[in-house]
Amino acid sequence: MAKRTDLDSFFAPSSVAVVGATPNEAKGGYNMLANMLESFSGPVYPVNPGREEILGVKCYPSVRDLAGKVEAAIVFVPAAAVPGVLGDCAAAGVKAAVLESGGFAEVGGEGKRISDRCREIASRSGLRLWGPNCTGLVNTDPFIFTPFMRVPKAHERLKPGTLGIIAQSGMLAAGFMLQYVISGFFAVSKACAIGNKLDVGEVEVLKYLSGDPRTKAVVAYLESIVDGPAFLEVAREMAGRKPLAVLKGGRYEESAKAAMSHTASLAGSDEVVEGALRQAGVIRVHDFHDLMNLGKAFSLHPDPFRLTSPTGDGVAAITVTGGGGVVMTDIVRDSGLQVPVLQDKTLKALAGVFPEWMAPSNPVDIWPAVEQKGLSVFSDSLRAVLSDDRVDGVVLLPFASRMLDSFPFEDIGEEVRRSGKAVVSWVFGDIRFFDTLEERLREFGIPVYTDLRSCVLALKSYLHFSRLAHGVSP
Amino acid sequence: MAKRTDLDSFFAPSSVAVVGATPNEAKGGYNMLANMLESFSGPVYPVNPGREEILGVKCYPSVRDLAGKVEAAIVFVPAAAVPGVLGDCAAAGVKAAVLESGGFAEVGGEGKRISDRCREIASRSGLRLWGPNCTGLVNTDPFIFTPFMRVPKAHERLKPGTLGIIAQSGMLAAGFMLQYVISGFFAVSKACAIGNKLDVGEVEVLKYLSGDPRTKAVVAYLESIVDGPAFLEVAREMAGRKPLAVLKGGRYEESAKAAMSHTASLAGSDEVVEGALRQAGVIRVHDFHDLMNLGKAFSLHPDPFRLTSPTGDGVAAITVTGGGGVVMTDIVRDSGLQVPVLQDKTLKALAGVFPEWMAPSNPVDIWPAVEQKGLSVFSDSLRAVLSDDRVDGVVLLPFASRMLDSFPFEDIGEEVRRSGKAVVSWVFGDIRFFDTLEERLREFGIPVYTDLRSCVLALKSYLHFSRLAHGVSP
Repeated sequence: MAKRTDLDSFFAPSSVAVVGATPNEAKGGYNMLANMLESFSGPVYPVNPGREEILGVKCYPSVRDLAGKVEAAIVFVPAAAVPGVLGDCAAAGVKAAVLESGGFAEVGGEGKRISDRCREIASRSGLRLWGPNCTGLVNTDPFIFTPFMRVPKAHERLKPGTLGIIAQSGMLAAGFMLQYVISGFFAVSKACAIGNKLDVGEVEVLKYLSGDPRTKAVVAYLESIVDGPAFLEVAREMAGRKPLAVLKGGRYEESAKAAMSHTASLAGSDEVVEGALRQAGVIRVHDFHDLMNLGKAFSLHPDPFRLTSPTGDGVAAITVTGGGGVVMTDIVRDSGLQVPVLQDKTLKALAGVFPEWMAPSNPVDIWPAVEQKGLSVFSDSLRAVLSDDRVDGVVLLPFASRMLDSFPFEDIGEEVRRSGKAVVSWVFGDIRFFDTLEERLREFGIPVYTDLRSCVLALKSYLHFSRLAHGVSP
Repeated sequence: MAKRTDLDSFFAPSSVAVVGATPNEAKGGYNMLANMLESFSGPVYPVNPGREEILGVKCYPSVRDLAGKVEAAIVFVPAAAVPGVLGDCAAAGVKAAVLESGGFAEVGGEGKRISDRCREIASRSGLRLWGPNCTGLVNTDPFIFTPFMRVPKAHERLKPGTLGIIAQSGMLAAGFMLQYVISGFFAVSKACAIGNKLDVGEVEVLKYLSGDPRTKAVVAYLESIVDGPAFLEVAREMAGRKPLAVLKGGRYEESAKAAMSHTASLAGSDEVVEGALRQAGVIRVHDFHDLMNLGKAFSLHPDPFRLTSPTGDGVAAITVTGGGGVVMTDIVRDSGLQVPVLQDKTLKALAGVFPEWMAPSNPVDIWPAVEQKGLSVFSDSLRAVLSDDRVDGVVLLPFASRMLDSFPFEDIGEEVRRSGKAVVSWVFGDIRFFDTLEERLREFGIPVYTDLRSCVLALKSYLHFSRLAHGVSP
């Protein structure tokens, strides 16, 4: 068994105290306790000097009363009370404290003094600190869920997955937790809202995820990279092994200034950041939407993504709408990828399923053939296209409607699996069938998007990462 | 009353025949009849030689049996039978025929011959043709709904609105109808799927919408612009009066070729198209997602959009997340818009609601102030920012959660109305509250998007159109 690290005490503690637990259902301290009691497999101890019991569980006046019994504490009390709690934690042998309250360094003067005292207690005692000013963390296996938002049956709703998420900004991280992690948008291994980074920071967390066998890819939203060289070292070490996508704002003078006032850390020249990230093989995006869409793309691949063709950039589209094929071609070309003329053998194979009057080409407009021969044309065309040496990735453009009842999902999945090439899908049409399409295609590692640009971003990122995985420089 | 035009017979006929009506619920001819019987206020006549009655309504063997009684016919029979039906229509005095079947010019040889015969009948008789190979049209006032997809209670679900939609590609237009128009995504005046354009084409439809008092803005997806000069003339005539956004594919050699094979019309050099559209004041986008997001933006404004400040490009952000403000600033700057330093009077007003330790700036990070003083800070800050002469548009970044229960929607709406400036909103957080935010903000003309890029596109388009409306060249 691998040596237990400091961060294991956050992600997989044997027992947890909830400091600031309360029976008041309107408060975060109630939510945290209710979540933990319901979903954590080890002992959970509420701590609140004013209560005998909460939610039917014996409540302790102080963490000191739990000496030797608690590995991690989740702390949700006003900032001014936090140093006292941390002193208690240190005295009781707690290894890790998740601080979710605000009111620390980000509020200036008094908050900064409190932060300094926390840091001092931590460095003296070896107690590690997570946060403050954040929603904490989620691990899906073993299960722990520390956010102060109530999520009933979190352990049943969050199926273990392979994506690691790091988000810095407090409110945004809360948003990520709610919008993506909890909605089941994709399957997460660990979600980390690191807040003010009083102690544990982005480099340590990234390093942990890099070494975590359950995490196969990471998306990170960062306000600041405090230790650039250390971050890049981890990123380089991940390159070709685990995809890493980063959203890092502050690309203009106005935004860099805003970033500085928000997190009190220098953003640094964006040219330098950009160049360094690119050299380290990191995929950089500029909108939260893109970051999470890449998270979805990579979370569908339990094993490191290695395509059959390591160096290609040829994309084919299989479409039921000629117009969709035209616009998709534009966006593929915008991205720098190519839309090659298909090999003769492919065109010949397609001609076999196409109507006589129609010459196949790329994008492959299959609708007239579908009208003649039915939906098996979709998988037949995909087989032909995937066996084309000039094709490294395929975008599918099916139509969401009752038509999906007889859609050849299994055959499509089989072709994709056999080919080892990258496949993504657009969805449009009747929104009542969007979920069906997404749920069926994701089984085969095919992410589904409602905008063409996200399809191309995912495909491009697959090709990029695959190149790294094959040791070809990006 | 304005003179009745040819297209009025499509959009507002006094009576309609459904040719190809059938009691078979799996068929388009059933859907069309069911939709029309349920939602059309005038007489609806099923036509099918093999039936006495359908859905309890007397059925006629031929349109000839309805001579003088029918203004428009919706025709859904195999292509080969269409010329015969059109002959009957002409003989019976029908003015307008909507052809939705495929199998015409797009299938080559025989289809082309059928198309020619249809065109001949039309030009000889004065009968106007819509389509074929399309989903027809929707008008919300007076109500008519011709698509071959069944939409129960279409007339109750499609509230009259101000957006005109034109879509050429058959399958895509069907997708648009389903995904956007029917889902109630935004309020439409008329939706036009023009298909193969055997007779009625994009220029005539655009001209009609340009003159239609119920239509205040138009979004168009076009595969080809057959008569460029005529199209541009209508576009120029709309500039500053009704916003027009166009998605026109075929920007690369590969896609132009695909467009040619799909619609048999030359796409033309994209540089020429781009320059001409820009000069005509048209907003051009490159993804369906963008086109429909602009449709949402403009459909929220019943009157032509005229901002208080005609020439500015200054954007402010009011945000509960510092990180969101940073990334938003980056994307605003990417778009060519500015993020100005606020006027002293504005900073002073903001300082009045901000905590003492925090200096206000743009983006306006209001979270610490909200924590101190509650959500009224949102509208107080918005008031200050909207009265700043350097600010022409504002992006809101609220958090979707139970917090919205006490969100100052009315005050925000009042500030926006008073200022006459452009305001859009991002939404993130708990997806269960997304609809609440969207429904409340749209009352005040504020469109809501889940990606920052769409917020900025909408804002930029508002500013662009407002400049045209003030007669300032774009």
